[in-house]
Amino acid sequence: MKAAVFYGPHQPLRIEEREIPRPGPGEILVKVAACGVCHSDLEYIELGVPTFKKPPVVLGHEPSGVVEEVGPGVTEFAPGARVILSAVTGCGQCLWCRSGRENICGQMIMLGNSIDGAYAEFVKVSARMAFALPEDVPLREGCIIADAISTPFHAVKSRARVQAGDLVAVIGCGGVGLNAVQIATALGAHVIAIDLVEQKLQWARELGAAETINAGQTDVPKKVRDLTGGGVDIALEVIGNPETLRQAYGCLRPGGRLCVVGYYPGDFSLAASRLMMRELEIVGSCGCPPQEYPRIIRMVADGQIKVKPLVTHYFSLEEVDKAFEVMKKGYSIRSVLVIDEKV
Amino acid sequence: MKAAVFYGPHQPLRIEEREIPRPGPGEILVKVAACGVCHSDLEYIELGVPTFKKPPVVLGHEPSGVVEEVGPGVTEFAPGARVILSAVTGCGQCLWCRSGRENICGQMIMLGNSIDGAYAEFVKVSARMAFALPEDVPLREGCIIADAISTPFHAVKSRARVQAGDLVAVIGCGGVGLNAVQIATALGAHVIAIDLVEQKLQWARELGAAETINAGQTDVPKKVRDLTGGGVDIALEVIGNPETLRQAYGCLRPGGRLCVVGYYPGDFSLAASRLMMRELEIVGSCGCPPQEYPRIIRMVADGQIKVKPLVTHYFSLEEVDKAFEVMKKGYSIRSVLVIDEKV
Amino acid sequence: MKAAVFYGPHQPLRIEEREIPRPGPGEILVKVAACGVCHSDLEYIELGVPTFKKPPVVLGHEPSGVVEEVGPGVTEFAPGARVILSAVTGCGQCLWCRSGRENICGQMIMLGNSIDGAYAEFVKVSARMAFALPEDVPLREGCIIADAISTPFHAVKSRARVQAGDLVAVIGCGGVGLNAVQIATALGAHVIAIDLVEQKLQWARELGAAETINAGQTDVPKKVRDLTGGGVDIALEVIGNPETLRQAYGCLRPGGRLCVVGYYPGDFSLAASRLMMRELEIVGSCGCPPQEYPRIIRMVADGQIKVKPLVTHYFSLEEVDKAFEVMKKGYSIRSVLVIDEKV
Amino acid sequence: MKAAVFYGPHQPLRIEEREIPRPGPGEILVKVAACGVCHSDLEYIELGVPTFKKPPVVLGHEPSGVVEEVGPGVTEFAPGARVILSAVTGCGQCLWCRSGRENICGQMIMLGNSIDGAYAEFVKVSARMAFALPEDVPLREGCIIADAISTPFHAVKSRARVQAGDLVAVIGCGGVGLNAVQIATALGAHVIAIDLVEQKLQWARELGAAETINAGQTDVPKKVRDLTGGGVDIALEVIGNPETLRQAYGCLRPGGRLCVVGYYPGDFSLAASRLMMRELEIVGSCGCPPQEYPRIIRMVADGQIKVKPLVTHYFSLEEVDKAFEVMKKGYSIRSVLVIDEKV
Repeated sequence: MKAAVFYGPHQPLRIEEREIPRPGPGEILVKVAACGVCHSDLEYIELGVPTFKKPPVVLGHEPSGVVEEVGPGVTEFAPGARVILSAVTGCGQCLWCRSGRENICGQMIMLGNSIDGAYAEFVKVSARMAFALPEDVPLREGCIIADAISTPFHAVKSRARVQAGDLVAVIGCGGVGLNAVQIATALGAHVIAIDLVEQKLQWARELGAAETINAGQTDVPKKVRDLTGGGVDIALEVIGNPETLRQAYGCLRPGGRLCVVGYYPGDFSLAASRLMMRELEIVGSCGCPPQEYPRIIRMVADGQIKVKPLVTHYFSLEEVDKAFEVMKKGYSIRSVLVIDEKV
Repeated sequence: MKAAVFYGPHQPLRIEEREIPRPGPGEILVKVAACGVCHSDLEYIELGVPTFKKPPVVLGHEPSGVVEEVGPGVTEFAPGARVILSAVTGCGQCLWCRSGRENICGQMIMLGNSIDGAYAEFVKVSARMAFALPEDVPLREGCIIADAISTPFHAVKSRARVQAGDLVAVIGCGGVGLNAVQIATALGAHVIAIDLVEQKLQWARELGAAETINAGQTDVPKKVRDLTGGGVDIALEVIGNPETLRQAYGCLRPGGRLCVVGYYPGDFSLAASRLMMRELEIVGSCGCPPQEYPRIIRMVADGQIKVKPLVTHYFSLEEVDKAFEVMKKGYSIRSVLVIDEKV
Repeated sequence: MKAAVFYGPHQPLRIEEREIPRPGPGEILVKVAACGVCHSDLEYIELGVPTFKKPPVVLGHEPSGVVEEVGPGVTEFAPGARVILSAVTGCGQCLWCRSGRENICGQMIMLGNSIDGAYAEFVKVSARMAFALPEDVPLREGCIIADAISTPFHAVKSRARVQAGDLVAVIGCGGVGLNAVQIATALGAHVIAIDLVEQKLQWARELGAAETINAGQTDVPKKVRDLTGGGVDIALEVIGNPETLRQAYGCLRPGGRLCVVGYYPGDFSLAASRLMMRELEIVGSCGCPPQEYPRIIRMVADGQIKVKPLVTHYFSLEEVDKAFEVMKKGYSIRSVLVIDEKV
Repeated sequence: MKAAVFYGPHQPLRIEEREIPRPGPGEILVKVAACGVCHSDLEYIELGVPTFKKPPVVLGHEPSGVVEEVGPGVTEFAPGARVILSAVTGCGQCLWCRSGRENICGQMIMLGNSIDGAYAEFVKVSARMAFALPEDVPLREGCIIADAISTPFHAVKSRARVQAGDLVAVIGCGGVGLNAVQIATALGAHVIAIDLVEQKLQWARELGAAETINAGQTDVPKKVRDLTGGGVDIALEVIGNPETLRQAYGCLRPGGRLCVVGYYPGDFSLAASRLMMRELEIVGSCGCPPQEYPRIIRMVADGQIKVKPLVTHYFSLEEVDKAFEVMKKGYSIRSVLVIDEKV
């Protein structure tokens, strides 16, 4: 089979011929249909963020596909089943996994990072990572559920705990942020989308934002407090920047909650008295525990969450580096590698 | 001013000329624009359910209008403000009121029941009962927020605690049930609407139901369990009938929750071991605490909850008894008395 | 090894010599120290409730012990580790298991019911079922954590959701009920314990009940409402009887919650309008998901939950039928089989 | 009547003779029994933190007493009733007040700050601020419920959301911190108390701390992670210092929650990636909404929360400045002014 393999930072992925793996007990082999291309991959390649598995490693953690073969003991799936694979899975044994929080398991496995991923014609995973995809969700675009949709879904629903009728600010309208906009709207929130790029604000409006603010032209917290009569219930920071974290924090009404989705490696600094006097809350959100996938898939199947408008570019496996180029230029919402052209 | 006055059961309301009341401290006088017509009124008239205030009492607890005059100490509203009035308000002092649960306050005041209501050209209420209505919500149909929308909103969001992607069954597609359908859908649920009347199921589909079941033609719990692979997360019973309560209960998957919205004066009977072994939950829901109104109004203004398709009939104040006739025949979703024809 | 084996209803357990089992992958072999004797066992023997595994089956689901041997892949435990074993474990794969609700998993395994249990010198289980027991919790009495303590702990904390300062009624002061009393008190509740037997009420007072009611001498709901100025926040029914279920329901204040812990095979019947008008809640509770064990063990180690006063009788493995006799006569809170006399 | 009046910073309170106020509608007059002396008062006097009401203002916001007279419309209390008064009350009308969050109401009234307080023989307040004190809670020490107990109660129960069996670190063992220790223990937590002063750690152990750490002799986060096998579920910072905030944050396990109770006027700085990758939470806590008082009073009456050991010094009204001296020297946990010597 063909696979796009990461050999280390600052070099392109190599398209190689590899042997098709065989599923062991509790595992399945999936013929990959499509796989979303994610910023995390770029961080391994360009920033030198290390992969958990020492290279060479096949990247790709956002796949859809069809079950090709099941290992001993697997009863939930049969060959021919349409599936998406979760980006991560926990050990299944620790207290976090057993409390619905696999995404912060200390022994978490990440596809295309701890183990070989889905920039390949076939991928072998634990059956725990597979979730059935109904016929009315297309394999080509459905793959982005595995990260680009599930990450903001978890953030909006489970960590920010957005309620119907909440005032919500989303700061940062890249791929994850735009999905936060559409998901918060799909949960009944009144969403204010904030970015510097007019095209992204346009996309945000198309995905349901009730209002948009171009952050380059205004004092964001002041503008948000004016629009809302005192601030939002919930602000999501989807960039990873100490300045936008401060902005998001400044948008909150008393009792409001800041949900940090963006990754920033350094420190951030906030007014302590405001936190205490107004009983503010700050919560981190990291990926998505796999058990939330079935409800996301259902919302996509029902049209409450859209996937097609979120995929702006399609490439073949061999063109993976082109996908990274497009991503770096900011032209895309999400790019997808269509690995099995027949789907 | 003109008012429709209830003098006791088994007689039509009398259209009378009354003096316009004057607002006392903390009160406002509202020129009524429109007022929804509710089944509860019919219960006083036809079933002899007693009103809290001894007749004569002006009925009507679902009004919109414009502030005409404010009493001493009222600063939140000024004459000219567009408002809806909450159907109920609590004492504001007890532990329930102070914990966000005014709707189960022991000293609860209900408009058109404990005090004179809004089947009249003017109504005087505590300013606590008024909530600003933005220009993009029409006064004619906006009035139904006060009960026909707020009751299922509270049931779906706060009592049933519907989460995005939940499987939800709504049993009974009258006015409240249809709104439960549209609200649960607006919160991201996959809704199965159930009724005996095909027209109502048609309305349910138009309001977002993913699936419908005609209860006359099938074993409802079995059908629901088949459709969902084991049962729904949440069932709402919006009829008030021991048999449909059993059906709703039978639709639940392990860990599922039954929310009882319908009123039934007698006992209901359920399998105890199922409750315990499957950790089921049963919760009652009664009206809506007023502090939830602003978020409902916001969702209506944003188009996430629709009011226009829910109002099927319009009458003048003098035609109030015609409205009851239409209701009894089951032709309507909601009827509205348009009291100020200029709005 | 010796084991007490169930061959079918209406006959005593047989004490047999059996081969010591060997742990497979992911399994451990435990040398049993002690094992609590539970009413469920009596239900197999006297009532003919069928075991999941066809007899012969070794009963016993409440054991403590010391790890003797670990199977391939087990890293959490080493020989010599003191442990208790959870009464049940889930499949680890389904949505319930992955959401912290192993206790309602459809493929749940129960020790001494689906698989051979711990009325034996050795027992082999999945490592998922073992939890470390610190030195300051005695093996003899610590075993009762596995069911007699964990079942009411889960009911009180996670299902009834008792909060500090809540008014709580516990109806039924057998082994589980008395532990509900002490656990609710340990969470900061004001507990009213209710039973027909004065000795049990005395035990309840010793375990922290603020007040007791002898149900034989009074109208329980009325008495509870008088004592509390309107009813309790939470009532736990720990008997499994339609009449005490009604009593517990009648004890609730507006917004109150009834938690059903007792098992009753038939229907129960309650006033529907009360549920709706007062927004009452009814929740079932079944066993305890194993991931809650570490926090229970910590509370026992800290002396916040007591185990010694709860064990009133000790027997050897050979005397198991005597333990059932004592249980039937109602003399005991909990009996324990001390299987390894050296502990 | 005598009263201790604040005329501005950097000068002692003046003991003056004032007229006894008369209760208006909805108000009560209380004969003050005792009033706790709080650090906030010292901040007005020594740091120049401005009072909401322009001086002169009678300080004192932690009183107990006996109702002397009730104003028109007050039905909940009669002369002779033993009460404590809440330190704050909300407007009762806004969305925060109507959702159980009076303590962050924008129009919040604080006794001895926005209005004349209880360093006086009589105090006049809204009946909303009064809560019945049963005979088994002494007036002398019961007064500290109004702030020194209620503030950490709200923090521990409602903001930190401590659950039974949680691992909890309390950083700072002054008056509020020590009460956080005893309250978290009373809710079933395993508490690690941390301070620099050995005497305070001794008090913490007496109030239930399972373990103590002298912060002067160790790396606190490392020590806490070692003791707990990876960190605590919840850390409470009860000092108000950016360095101890960092320490508290460093004590958290994945999924852990930091509750900020201490007031610090500047910024604090934390590792952003840790927040996101481990899904940490940070919540502020400010005072206590009055509707939580009845459950606190119940726990004090039941002996689950102790007040006597927390009051280390007693003074007369005239000695108020002595109380401040003792506070500044750190000798006291809480000082109380005994204003009515007969109680």
